[in-house]
Amino acid sequence: MRLRTNPKALSKLEEHNDIVYLNPTDIKGRWANAFGNDHPIYIEIGMGKGDFIIENARRYPEINFIGIEKITTVLYKAVHKYLTLEDQPKNLLFLKEDAAVLTDIFAPGEVDLIYLNFSDPWPKKRHEKRRLTYRTYLDVYRDILKPQGHVILKTDNRSLFEYSLVSFSQYGLHFNDVCLDLHHSTGYEDNIVTEYERKFSPYGPIYRIDVNYK
Amino acid sequence: MRLRTNPKALSKLEEHNDIVYLNPTDIKGRWANAFGNDHPIYIEIGMGKGDFIIENARRYPEINFIGIEKITTVLYKAVHKYLTLEDQPKNLLFLKEDAAVLTDIFAPGEVDLIYLNFSDPWPKKRHEKRRLTYRTYLDVYRDILKPQGHVILKTDNRSLFEYSLVSFSQYGLHFNDVCLDLHHSTGYEDNIVTEYERKFSPYGPIYRIDVNYK
Repeated sequence: MRLRTNPKALSKLEEHNDIVYLNPTDIKGRWANAFGNDHPIYIEIGMGKGDFIIENARRYPEINFIGIEKITTVLYKAVHKYLTLEDQPKNLLFLKEDAAVLTDIFAPGEVDLIYLNFSDPWPKKRHEKRRLTYRTYLDVYRDILKPQGHVILKTDNRSLFEYSLVSFSQYGLHFNDVCLDLHHSTGYEDNIVTEYERKFSPYGPIYRIDVNYK
Repeated sequence: MRLRTNPKALSKLEEHNDIVYLNPTDIKGRWANAFGNDHPIYIEIGMGKGDFIIENARRYPEINFIGIEKITTVLYKAVHKYLTLEDQPKNLLFLKEDAAVLTDIFAPGEVDLIYLNFSDPWPKKRHEKRRLTYRTYLDVYRDILKPQGHVILKTDNRSLFEYSLVSFSQYGLHFNDVCLDLHHSTGYEDNIVTEYERKFSPYGPIYRIDVNYK
């Protein structure tokens, strides 16, 4: 996502340390305490501007959500959107982190489900290791998810989706469901769109896969 | 495929018993003898009118091909096409069989690769067991393929492809390659089109997957 950098974003995020955890390694293994309940925890890695996770938090109050975004300015957009809501859901927190360090933030089995929405496709072969469905990331997800924990990926990038199907298969993940045109299929009426998805879905199919660890 | 039945097709096929094997259980375990060499054997299940397998046989003389089609009239169309060739490749035979009985026709490990091209999608849930990527068919393919033998599926039917991705994954097959738009991708310039594919590829993507047994 190309975006003008907001030099004040970090200091603004620091003002909201009740919902934005800037040193979340302190909380590792104690996220139930942070939420004040032991509901399941769903995280979105690469949250972007937050529409998806905020709507999830509103719609599913019995689930705890954590939106994770490494780019400060982008994270601030999501937090700002949350703060301007009249009725702010209490089951949503935010982290400014990179996916690679999530094992420092979550204890084994602390997460129930991971969403990857419109992740950077890193199209060059030499950047393969940066794709969020590369096997080293699948190791990270395995380490923080409950046994049989799910990963749900959506993208409009055909190459990333083709790559991810192969990567998931070769890693030994179990495919629950694959959809190759999410906006023209029945059975996905509860789909919550991201900002990006709303903008780009008219131009080609949105792909989606739901896998779980064995 | 809807097609006018040709009542003479079977008797015509019987005239060509050098290339059409109507009682192939006799040959089980001895296909190398039938071809007169021990080259790898690639089979196409649901061959249709034969363009794909005939062009393969021409292009790859070091591989033995077997086109399998259960509908007599359709099989005869393929055989007729072969017979009218000026230069008939000797590495191609035909069978009139159903996929379910292939273990009566091929010994374990006798086949190197299976092509499934534009198979009937059987869209109704109650017909799932008829789809050529249902697990009982994957059992049949496993039983006749060499260890690590490949299955390559092409289709324009999105539902069948989504179903097959899940079925292959849940069966434990290894994904080698997935392409979600075969006619608009690089790296597939050697793709050999079927009659159906030539006709319908302008109207939507052709999906392809290459898997192998572990």
